[in-house]
This record gives sequence, C-alpha cells and structure tokens, in this order.
Amino acid sequence: MDAESEDVSAVELREAWPLLSPPDRLEGFKLLSRGEQEEFFEGLGAADTSDLLLGLQPQERKNWLRLLPLDDAADVIQATDAAERDGLMGLLDDLTRKEVKALLAYAEDEAGGLMNPRYARLRPDMSVDEAITYLRKQARERVETIYYAYVLGPEQHLLGVVSFRDLFTAQGNHLVRDVMHTDLVIAPETLDQEGVSRLFGEHALMAIPVVDERGRMKGIVTIDDIVDVVAEEATEDIQKMGGTAALSEPYLKASLTVMLKARAGWLAVLLLGEMLTASAMQHFEHEIAAAVVLALFVPLIISSGGNSGSQATTLVIRALALDEIKLRDWWRVARRELASGLALGGILGVIGFARIEIWEAIFHPYGEHHVKLAFTVAFSLIGVVTLGTMAGSLLPFALKRVGFDPASASAPLVATLVDVTGLVIYFTLASIILRGTLL
Amino acid sequence: MDAESEDVSAVELREAWPLLSPPDRLEGFKLLSRGEQEEFFEGLGAADTSDLLLGLQPQERKNWLRLLPLDDAADVIQATDAAERDGLMGLLDDLTRKEVKALLAYAEDEAGGLMNPRYARLRPDMSVDEAITYLRKQARERVETIYYAYVLGPEQHLLGVVSFRDLFTAQGNHLVRDVMHTDLVIAPETLDQEGVSRLFGEHALMAIPVVDERGRMKGIVTIDDIVDVVAEEATEDIQKMGGTAALSEPYLKASLTVMLKARAGWLAVLLLGEMLTASAMQHFEHEIAAAVVLALFVPLIISSGGNSGSQATTLVIRALALDEIKLRDWWRVARRELASGLALGGILGVIGFARIEIWEAIFHPYGEHHVKLAFTVAFSLIGVVTLGTMAGSLLPFALKRVGFDPASASAPLVATLVDVTGLVIYFTLASIILRGTLL
Repeated sequence: MDAESEDVSAVELREAWPLLSPPDRLEGFKLLSRGEQEEFFEGLGAADTSDLLLGLQPQERKNWLRLLPLDDAADVIQATDAAERDGLMGLLDDLTRKEVKALLAYAEDEAGGLMNPRYARLRPDMSVDEAITYLRKQARERVETIYYAYVLGPEQHLLGVVSFRDLFTAQGNHLVRDVMHTDLVIAPETLDQEGVSRLFGEHALMAIPVVDERGRMKGIVTIDDIVDVVAEEATEDIQKMGGTAALSEPYLKASLTVMLKARAGWLAVLLLGEMLTASAMQHFEHEIAAAVVLALFVPLIISSGGNSGSQATTLVIRALALDEIKLRDWWRVARRELASGLALGGILGVIGFARIEIWEAIFHPYGEHHVKLAFTVAFSLIGVVTLGTMAGSLLPFALKRVGFDPASASAPLVATLVDVTGLVIYFTLASIILRGTLL
Repeated sequence: MDAESEDVSAVELREAWPLLSPPDRLEGFKLLSRGEQEEFFEGLGAADTSDLLLGLQPQERKNWLRLLPLDDAADVIQATDAAERDGLMGLLDDLTRKEVKALLAYAEDEAGGLMNPRYARLRPDMSVDEAITYLRKQARERVETIYYAYVLGPEQHLLGVVSFRDLFTAQGNHLVRDVMHTDLVIAPETLDQEGVSRLFGEHALMAIPVVDERGRMKGIVTIDDIVDVVAEEATEDIQKMGGTAALSEPYLKASLTVMLKARAGWLAVLLLGEMLTASAMQHFEHEIAAAVVLALFVPLIISSGGNSGSQATTLVIRALALDEIKLRDWWRVARRELASGLALGGILGVIGFARIEIWEAIFHPYGEHHVKLAFTVAFSLIGVVTLGTMAGSLLPFALKRVGFDPASASAPLVATLVDVTGLVIYFTLASIILRGTLL
C-alpha cells in the first residue's frame, strides 16, 4: 500500500485484495473505517476470513469472529489450518462452540453443512400476538432470520412454518397452529448442495428447514448461501468440461503446483489416448505414401469431429446439471443428436467440397483426381461430425450411469475419443473412393 | 397421461413436464389439488407459465395471472407472443398494468428489468411503533418483501433502509431516521444482471434497492431472482465455451432449427479456419513425401496443443466471469501460464519421447533415425503445449479488451488457432533436427 493513500475504501481494498501480500492485506483492512471494515468483512470468503483473523490481535480476533453468523463461523474454522483451529474455537462462547462442533460433523457440501442451527421457533398453541412478542425477543438474539418462524412440537418435531407476514396479517387472538402452513418443503440433513439449490429453484422460498431422518428440525438453509453454491457448482463443471480437475481455490490463489496437478494428469491421459492416432495413422502408412495429398486433410477432418463433439457434450452436460434432461432421456437425445449431426455434417461436407474444388480451379494443387478427393473429404466430414455429435452427447449419459460426474466428458476427452475413429473413417472412405486412381 | 393415474403430485408433473405435449400439460395441471397447483405454478419458468395461462379459460387465466408477483407477471408477459400480450395485460387491474408497462420498458437483463416496484416504504419522521403498524398494513398488500423497509424523502428519494429486525429490536418511541441505516448498497437501474449478482455476492443482503440517476427509488431486486441469474449466466458461458451460440431455451425445448442455427455457424467458421491447416500441410508436402513417418504424429501434436489451450482458456474465462481476475491482470496470468505451459509441455514431451522409444524397441516401426524422430516429437510437444497454453489464456483477455464476451474464446476456437501454428512448429523442428537423415 502507498503510505500516502490513507483513505482507502472497502471497494478499493476488495479490488486490490488478490494482488496484496498477507501483511499488506492486514494493513489495508486496518486503514478502513469501522463501518467499512464491517462491510468488507462480511463479503470475504471463508479462507480469506481465516487468514485475516489469524493476523489480528487475540482480542480483535475474538470480536470479529463473534460477528459472524454461526454457519459462516463454522466455514471459517473449516478453512483454517488444523493447528490453528482449536485456538479459534476457544474464542467462541460455550454454546456457539458446541453448535459449531455439531456443524463441522456434516460434510461441507450437504444440507447439514450449509445450515444455521439458530432459527426462530414457535409453539403451535401460542396466539398470534404472543408469537409476535416472542419473535421480537428472539430477534435480539442471533437467529439467522426472523422472516420465517418454525413451529415445533415435542422433541423438536417440525409441525409447520409461518412467515412473519402471515403473523402480521392474521388476527392477534388466533392460534399459531391455525395460521401456520403444513405443506412443508424440507431438506433432509444429508441432501447434497445441488439438491438443496434445486429445492430453492423449484419453490419461491427464502429459507428451507433441514430435518433429520426422524423429522426433527436441525436448522435452516437460507437462499443467500445458495447463490454461492450455484456459482461454485457451475465453476466445478466448467473446469472439468475444459479438461482440468476442479480447483478448490480461485485461479490466482492456487499455487503453480496445485495448478499443474489439476492439469497435468488429464493432459497426460489425453496424450496417451492420442497415441492411438499414431497407431491408426501407421495402419494407413501405405495409403499416405501413395497419396501424400490425403495427409493434408487429416487435421481438418479430426478437428471437425472434435469441434462438433465439444458442442454436443457441452449442451448435454449443462442440460443434465440443470435437470432439463434426465438419464432416461438418453434415447430422445440420441435421436435428436443423430439428426443434428447429419445436418451439421452435411453443411460442413458441402463447404469442404467447395473449398477443394475452388482451390483446384485456382491453384491446381490436388491433381487430376480432385473430384474424388473432394468427395472423400466431404463424406468423411459427414461421418466424422455425426460420430462426434453422437459420442459427445452420449458420453455424459454413460458417465452419469456408472456414477461419474457427467462434466468429466470434457471437450478434450470427446475429441480424443473421436480422433482415432475419425481417422479410420477418413482412410477407409479414401481407400474405397480412390481405389484404382490415387490408391 | 395415463387415465388411471388420477393421483398426480406437483413433483411428478414437474418431472414429466418436458416430455408432455401442451394439452397433456394442461390436463396434468388440472389433475393437481389446489395446493399442489399453487406450488407447481410458482416454480414454473416465464415461458411455461405463459403457455399454461393461454390454455386456461379467461376467468381462471385472470386468477392465476394475478397470483404472480409483479416482476414475475412482467416476465411472463414478456415471454408471451406479441399477439396475445395485450389480452394478458387486459386481465390485470389498472395499477398493476401501469406498473407492468413501466417494467417492460427495461431490458430483461438489467436491474430495472429484474426489480419489483412494490416494496415496503416508510417516512423518516415516523416513530418505530408507527412504522411497525404501517408495515403491518403494507404486509396485506402485495409488496415483494417486508423484511426490509425503505425510507423515502421528498420525490421518492432513498434516504435509508431498516430491516424488520431493526424495528423490532428498537425502542418504540425512537424515530425511523434514528434507527435506519444510511450506508446503502444500491443498484443503478441500468446496471446489468451480472453486476447486480456481484453486489449480492459482496454484501450479505436479501434485497437491494434500485434507483435512477437522480437517486429516486424505483423498486427492489430480491436475492431469489439472483439465483436464476447466476445459473443463467453460467449456462450462457458454458454454451459459448463449448463453441455454440448461447441458447435462450432449455435443451429439449429448443427446436432442431434453433439448435442447428446455434451450432452450424461456429462449426462452419471453425472449418474455414481449419482449412488453413491443409495449406500449412501442403507447404510441407515434400517433407511428408520424404518421411511419411512424420505424418503419423500430426494428430497427436495438434491435439495436445488444443487440449492445453482448452484447459487454459476455460480457467481464465471462469476466473474473469467470477471477477477473480481483472483485465489488468493479463500480464500476471501470461507469466503464470508461460511457466505452466513449459512445465506441462515438458511432462508431455518426456511421455512422447518414451512412447516412441518403447514402441521402437518392441515393434521397430520408425527406422534407424528413431531417436531424432523422438526428439522432434518431444520438442514439438513442448512448443505446442506452451503455445496452446499462452493462446488459450490470453485470447479471453483480448476479446474482453475489444468488447466481446471472453467466453467466446471457446475450446474449439483456441484449438483451431493453435493447430496451424502447431503444424509449423512441428515441421520446422523436423526439418532442423532431421536434416541430412530423413529429410
């Protein structure tokens, strides 16, 4: 930080953050006004919050940690090195520490790990006026939201929910049990975060209660936590679709070693796969030697297969992730993609044919059998594009069927699978069409 | 629908929905209980809601349309064919129709188009008790949320915000102006939806007020609308990254024609680009004729460039979309990717070298100059992977710099750009290393 720029805003610090060293980050944070510090602090991710806390003096550290909602505090402690974790836990009051410990027992990416165990609760036999007074008291404590209040029976059994608005618009002497909604949307505590975000997508709700297998209420997940989940799931899918293992950190925060690990594995696997193309080409070595002109179109043919496969796999993976299509729709998708592949291949075939004939007319590079060559390339494009489209659309289904993430059907993987078959199609068609002329 | 399965639930109907014809959808909807109908209706997207409404009798149509929050009603009318739009507008009451018309003037993907103009409002000189009573009255009307109330001065100027909880925990005789927050997070009405979702990500808020350029409050955007925006933006990026134009409809709803239009354009452009590889190969026709063995490794070399480029471009596009890196970070990214590219290329080079030498030891396919051939392939892999990584990481920056969407730097586009250069690297290295032996 410049010594001169004493006036720093939360927005400026947020912009500069990824570029700053840990001591500069701390320095920048201290330069903010108290209000700006709070604004900045509540927007930080779990890992950054953990780093920042560890840089502060013990008393300050305690004050800031206690500002966090319970579920966020648990995430921060999760993101902290094991060695420092107990120290942070020690700064919490007894009740909070117990609750954080309970939260840490859940996997980070299931409903139980997303929830906050502090929520507004009511009894079914309270009157509406009593409920409002009681909620007013709870609002002073650190419950996550008072917008919904959950009506609990014996042993924390969830009976119903009332929104604040329901209470506000109901008559004061009615009972909570009479105004509460009992057609509940609930999340089982082990539901994964994709399932939870789907529930929010299907119902216009701000919070969803989490219950255990015996119907006892454990906490609530609020929609603001889901915005992060949706973005995070999309990032993971995108990274896998690009042929990388999913990174758990932002791009600039991941060390070079982490980055190489995420990328080298897949690249090496794909290279080993691509080596089959060398074997396939070798199989047609005599054809290439007899007609070198055939080799000229190899990159064009195989990349067209890869490109059409990349389109199909991307569309299908995303549609599966958004639940627009299900596993059982594979046959509908296959028929659709067969039609698309033939149409797209036909278009590319015509363009390829025209290109060869136009070049021949102008530069005469392809010799007397140029028409047969042009037909070979055109038919190969139809075959390869159809193949790429089919492989690209069906691979995600196959992966999902056997329990893998469909997003692993990355564009590079599909391209690699299609390359070998594409070469076989091309040279086979060549040996049929060009037999007796070039070959 | 089976005639027997009279008992249909909202969940079942949602599952079957994409597979049903319009009349069957209507039939299925009518089979639901009233409660289930409401649950199902509020989870429908704008286009489906529009179709469903148009299938209902006029009186029913009116009742259902009026159930929708104002911003959703505007979205539904937006999604309706122009010919039917006035009919739907006519079903709204006068005030709502006026408000919907105002909303339709905004672009769908900016803050003004996402907002609901009905929000809870307070005056600064009310007491807390008066405010609570006044909000209780407003809760009966169709304001989007009473969780936050906005404090307005003359001419609808936004002065501050109070959460319900603030009012509830404050003393009844204090004034609203004394308990309201004035450090406001606001969205200008023309802010695009990505900007709005970023505001929600940076601040832990359930709603953000939308103001015009003169500071007058126009409405609020609530976080539940943002969940859809985040998913939608990710879908658009993913489709572009796979080399398709972004689809505005779910996969199975897009007609074959729409699908072909979205895909054929890019495929044809990429094919034209790939034709440069045929010209590049032709340039090296004599080398290929002299040493056919060189042709065998062409697919392997160019696909490795494409794969490493796909990884780099995917990581960078996503990091740009999430604001993890900015345009000005391009030089940091370039240095990082240069290091990654050299390291990854080195790893692939070693594997490629080993493959050729092991095959030679077992099958003797490559002749007496196999070591030089292996070096040619190994060094080419280093060059091509470094090139792919650099091109893949910098192309998104270049596109963003000139005002295009960085997500257009699709894996297929990067692969196509890298293919030609990859071939030049390979054959140039070959003519240096193999001079006097094979060539």
